Amino acid sequence: MHFFSDNATPVCPDVMAAMAAADRADHGYDGDIWSARLNGVFSDLFETPVEALWIASGTAANSIALACLCPPYGGVLCHEEAHIVVDECGAPGFYTHGASLMALPGAGAKLSPDIVTERLKAIRPDVHQVPARAISITQATEYGLAYTPDEVAALGAVAREYGLGFHMDGARFANAVAHLGCHPGDVTWRAGVDVLSFGCVKNGGMIGEALLFFGDRAQARAAEAARWRKRGGHLFSKGRYLAAQLLAMVEGDLWLRNAEAANAAAQALAAGAAGRLMYPVEANELFIRLTAQEAAALRAQGFDFYDWGEGAARLVTNWSHDAASVKPLADALGTLSA
Amino acid sequence: MHFFSDNATPVCPDVMAAMAAADRADHGYDGDIWSARLNGVFSDLFETPVEALWIASGTAANSIALACLCPPYGGVLCHEEAHIVVDECGAPGFYTHGASLMALPGAGAKLSPDIVTERLKAIRPDVHQVPARAISITQATEYGLAYTPDEVAALGAVAREYGLGFHMDGARFANAVAHLGCHPGDVTWRAGVDVLSFGCVKNGGMIGEALLFFGDRAQARAAEAARWRKRGGHLFSKGRYLAAQLLAMVEGDLWLRNAEAANAAAQALAAGAAGRLMYPVEANELFIRLTAQEAAALRAQGFDFYDWGEGAARLVTNWSHDAASVKPLADALGTLSA
Amino acid sequence: MHFFSDNATPVCPDVMAAMAAADRADHGYDGDIWSARLNGVFSDLFETPVEALWIASGTAANSIALACLCPPYGGVLCHEEAHIVVDECGAPGFYTHGASLMALPGAGAKLSPDIVTERLKAIRPDVHQVPARAISITQATEYGLAYTPDEVAALGAVAREYGLGFHMDGARFANAVAHLGCHPGDVTWRAGVDVLSFGCVKNGGMIGEALLFFGDRAQARAAEAARWRKRGGHLFSKGRYLAAQLLAMVEGDLWLRNAEAANAAAQALAAGAAGRLMYPVEANELFIRLTAQEAAALRAQGFDFYDWGEGAARLVTNWSHDAASVKPLADALGTLSA
Amino acid sequence: MHFFSDNATPVCPDVMAAMAAADRADHGYDGDIWSARLNGVFSDLFETPVEALWIASGTAANSIALACLCPPYGGVLCHEEAHIVVDECGAPGFYTHGASLMALPGAGAKLSPDIVTERLKAIRPDVHQVPARAISITQATEYGLAYTPDEVAALGAVAREYGLGFHMDGARFANAVAHLGCHPGDVTWRAGVDVLSFGCVKNGGMIGEALLFFGDRAQARAAEAARWRKRGGHLFSKGRYLAAQLLAMVEGDLWLRNAEAANAAAQALAAGAAGRLMYPVEANELFIRLTAQEAAALRAQGFDFYDWGEGAARLVTNWSHDAASVKPLADALGTLSA
Repeated sequence: MHFFSDNATPVCPDVMAAMAAADRADHGYDGDIWSARLNGVFSDLFETPVEALWIASGTAANSIALACLCPPYGGVLCHEEAHIVVDECGAPGFYTHGASLMALPGAGAKLSPDIVTERLKAIRPDVHQVPARAISITQATEYGLAYTPDEVAALGAVAREYGLGFHMDGARFANAVAHLGCHPGDVTWRAGVDVLSFGCVKNGGMIGEALLFFGDRAQARAAEAARWRKRGGHLFSKGRYLAAQLLAMVEGDLWLRNAEAANAAAQALAAGAAGRLMYPVEANELFIRLTAQEAAALRAQGFDFYDWGEGAARLVTNWSHDAASVKPLADALGTLSA
Repeated sequence: MHFFSDNATPVCPDVMAAMAAADRADHGYDGDIWSARLNGVFSDLFETPVEALWIASGTAANSIALACLCPPYGGVLCHEEAHIVVDECGAPGFYTHGASLMALPGAGAKLSPDIVTERLKAIRPDVHQVPARAISITQATEYGLAYTPDEVAALGAVAREYGLGFHMDGARFANAVAHLGCHPGDVTWRAGVDVLSFGCVKNGGMIGEALLFFGDRAQARAAEAARWRKRGGHLFSKGRYLAAQLLAMVEGDLWLRNAEAANAAAQALAAGAAGRLMYPVEANELFIRLTAQEAAALRAQGFDFYDWGEGAARLVTNWSHDAASVKPLADALGTLSA
Repeated sequence: MHFFSDNATPVCPDVMAAMAAADRADHGYDGDIWSARLNGVFSDLFETPVEALWIASGTAANSIALACLCPPYGGVLCHEEAHIVVDECGAPGFYTHGASLMALPGAGAKLSPDIVTERLKAIRPDVHQVPARAISITQATEYGLAYTPDEVAALGAVAREYGLGFHMDGARFANAVAHLGCHPGDVTWRAGVDVLSFGCVKNGGMIGEALLFFGDRAQARAAEAARWRKRGGHLFSKGRYLAAQLLAMVEGDLWLRNAEAANAAAQALAAGAAGRLMYPVEANELFIRLTAQEAAALRAQGFDFYDWGEGAARLVTNWSHDAASVKPLADALGTLSA
Repeated sequence: MHFFSDNATPVCPDVMAAMAAADRADHGYDGDIWSARLNGVFSDLFETPVEALWIASGTAANSIALACLCPPYGGVLCHEEAHIVVDECGAPGFYTHGASLMALPGAGAKLSPDIVTERLKAIRPDVHQVPARAISITQATEYGLAYTPDEVAALGAVAREYGLGFHMDGARFANAVAHLGCHPGDVTWRAGVDVLSFGCVKNGGMIGEALLFFGDRAQARAAEAARWRKRGGHLFSKGRYLAAQLLAMVEGDLWLRNAEAANAAAQALAAGAAGRLMYPVEANELFIRLTAQEAAALRAQGFDFYDWGEGAARLVTNWSHDAASVKPLADALGTLSA
């Protein structure tokens, strides 16, 4: 049983069906009837006008978002363990043409307003120093923690005060919202977020995330993003297969139901791993203390997962799980703990 | 009946089936068992060691290929009507970090060794001028003409003489090979081509082309390309769905059969449009003289296609066509001609 | 006697003296008292508010100007023989992060409104094609011709109509103005020019051109340019030595007097070369028909210059010349012609 | 009396004289007789074959050096307070097309082999993470400390082990060598340094540093650097004025004598500021504890300098100083201390 990552799971059947339903001729690129519905569907979901583009990958979505917020000579405040810093081979530097990632510390891979503000105050307003132009946070964080609406809003206030764009990497946005039980608008545009990478692939999609723009500048920024999408080789001629995935996710709230299933599985594992948790389990990731011997024991029982440095491991649940299906691992963890 | 473009057709059923067969968990990115087979399958097809990467789009494949052949301060010799010049919103300039496209004339959108050599001789070997570093040609050309093995080899000889990389944009490579009746190696590596964008999407795929590297430097260049793929946001976590498409295309020669069907349909139309052809029909595109009135008449009968400037039109056939299925349009064209 | 290029002459004594006068401690970068006077001095000269930055080279000035006018995915309409196309090793592509130079033909290296408009009309307004965002012309042109105020204004009108920025490469701006006898504002901001690379080095300076911004967006663009200047490594810590050169050029109209001397020398040569001229002589460059034998004869008499392809040569006069000092060459040319 | 920075001082008279001596016509760019001598003069100085290019500024020299060592998807290990990180507005990201600066801690702004190695070991060798490709250190460091030959060699050994290029920002290289009393080769190529930004401007030059390449790959890298220099707008047409400055610096060991004078002045101040020093004084910079009241007292006596955060100040001596000339400040500091 695999707990490597939610990014390697099969595609959710409803998404697969939606792709099959889109398997007929239409206009190329984003001229098709599926793509045409994205703005409306996401505007309804978020209860505000949204400009929505399909983008193939989270790395591309994040990088294009940042290219819309930050000039080449600017900087993006982010957590030092953020995916954009650690796992994208410099893609944000590519799309922004060399902007700087200003990596900051913070417990649980969360940015705090205090640390952000302290960094901002240290920047001299001359041409020698890179000016900050954007903040980027990950929801849920790299350690599976969800920013509450208040936490996001506090960072949004800093962004507004300093004239910064505000980006949210929502690779696991659904899991965060499912945990928080809030409206998706509460942790995004109502809290000052300008651009959201709305993740689908980890949540049951095949290829395709949504890049969502909120607010007064949404249209201008989305027009820029459409240029970067083309220029990055991401304007696929059969884009309808991506649009269809996103529609399937949003319509009927599949995105939330899938996330709830993954989260429930994670809670079941958390119960089994009580006493081992390195972070509270709020989304679909567990980081647990685990000796090499214990890890070997679990693997011998058929459970696969990544080590997380020495003496620790990461377990990721996904849309195809639920509390029942992960019971074997929960039990195995509980036995270890004994 | 649509003759807009082969890039907007449905996905070929065998490809769709292959994607469904890949719908199970495996390692992410290109760590899966489908991706692992690409080098072997393409090496068999081309009868030489090939390094093969899946890339989502032709624009990305072309741009990444050029980034592997040309430094930022270099230039790429290409036809002034090439897709990389006209239809990619500067994507090659993005991936190469500013390399120059050196656009050259040539009948039927074909580059000739004479024109290429004349341009090369005009470049001063000082640091003030952009040095040519690569040649890029399109097979079949933007006007549906196929370079013969000898024609490619003549350009390959120029590339070798001047120390240039040699790229082929094969968005319709299959159609060209089907027309030529040659081995695919004869118009690529045996003729000096270093990198081939092996098109699948126009030929029945959904999302995904193959980027193929030949020759001594294949491994080093493919390793570079893998970096650009990641950095461009093109290393999808569920890459197996792309790899599966490519395997389906190559195994069992689906790529050739699909192209043969499209080409046969084009020949049927060409017979109907005798006397109107602006270029010989060698692949799956027809460029025909057509008055606005004639165009309207055809559209009234349910045939859709793009105008090609004043008094002309472009008709594109695809894998789902054959001579029989396009007979209605062939007949309609013949009637017009009468 | 050298007629290779005006870019290799000694520094004009008044400029040298100004540098010596600036040889005392002051604040670094552009915080000194000389740099602080640039805006005022150029505003006076042009009779309009000007934002002025010193930039070390024409290549950097042109490239930074274009980076302020054109996004990475945009294009710059320019002549196919423009310096930015032919002689800057892709520097504009570097500073603009990959913008396209849209090279156009035109007699005497002049752009015409018709050719520019025709090109603009051919661009589809979709994301696949590079949108034009700027026009760049060279005053005087690469063949030593001066655009009249009306000619510039006609291009300025096109720029305004299509929402394009308008840049003038004025490497030999002084020579053009000296020839035209007009106010410098008449061929720049009054004719719609947004940014001028005001050349000094060819006109007697050592290192340093002025980059001048006109109009409503001057301040915002100059602020951007200041970032590119720093980021390009062009914000020298002892910038006062550049500012002092520019001030010496403008104050007391040295820039015009130097250009008048060079132009007068060119006219004297033109008289001697009557019948050989390939272009009217309007600035300080002559392009003449000259056989290899004739060229050898002149060189044997001690005159140095560049061949300009077969059967032609280029002669460039400079600030240190005048009609009298170039009489030996004028006479020698006249004798050849006989 | 100014102690703001050595980068704002007048030009040393010998350098000024050399520029005046170069004030005659010659071939443009680097085709002149002064530029032609650079390789030889620096090879003699360093006792090894050196490829030497003049570059206008330290920012440009550093950035071009890094562009020769690190691909766009690579990273440069450097100190978190290095000039390239803090004070160049992202210029290295511009010239490298987006490479990452991997900022590391270290006392006195020095990198240690341990910290570098620890960071290197943490990088996964997959395409998701930015691979380190170069190390860059500053000699003397941003806090005025000199790396000893052994310290440089230890980092050079790490660079060799991991296949990294090794760059030294030598904005105050002369001061470091003057302090160390070693041969300049001992802290550069003999210790594994591949590229050195050999600073002149802070040491009495006007505009112009030397970019020096050592070792087997020197020629290839210098050829690349020549392209970046042109492309960055740094190949000035009257380059001889830069070459002449560098020659004046090196010939007759002016570079060392100037640095010795500045260092001696710094030692004199250090004696006066005993008990206040935050770092040992090894070059020409002092970082001292100083209350706001004390700073005001010094300024009231005519001494100018920068605050260095709260309760601290930076004093920089320069080539025009010596122990005697800075005695007034040394005394004033001593009095404060009392």
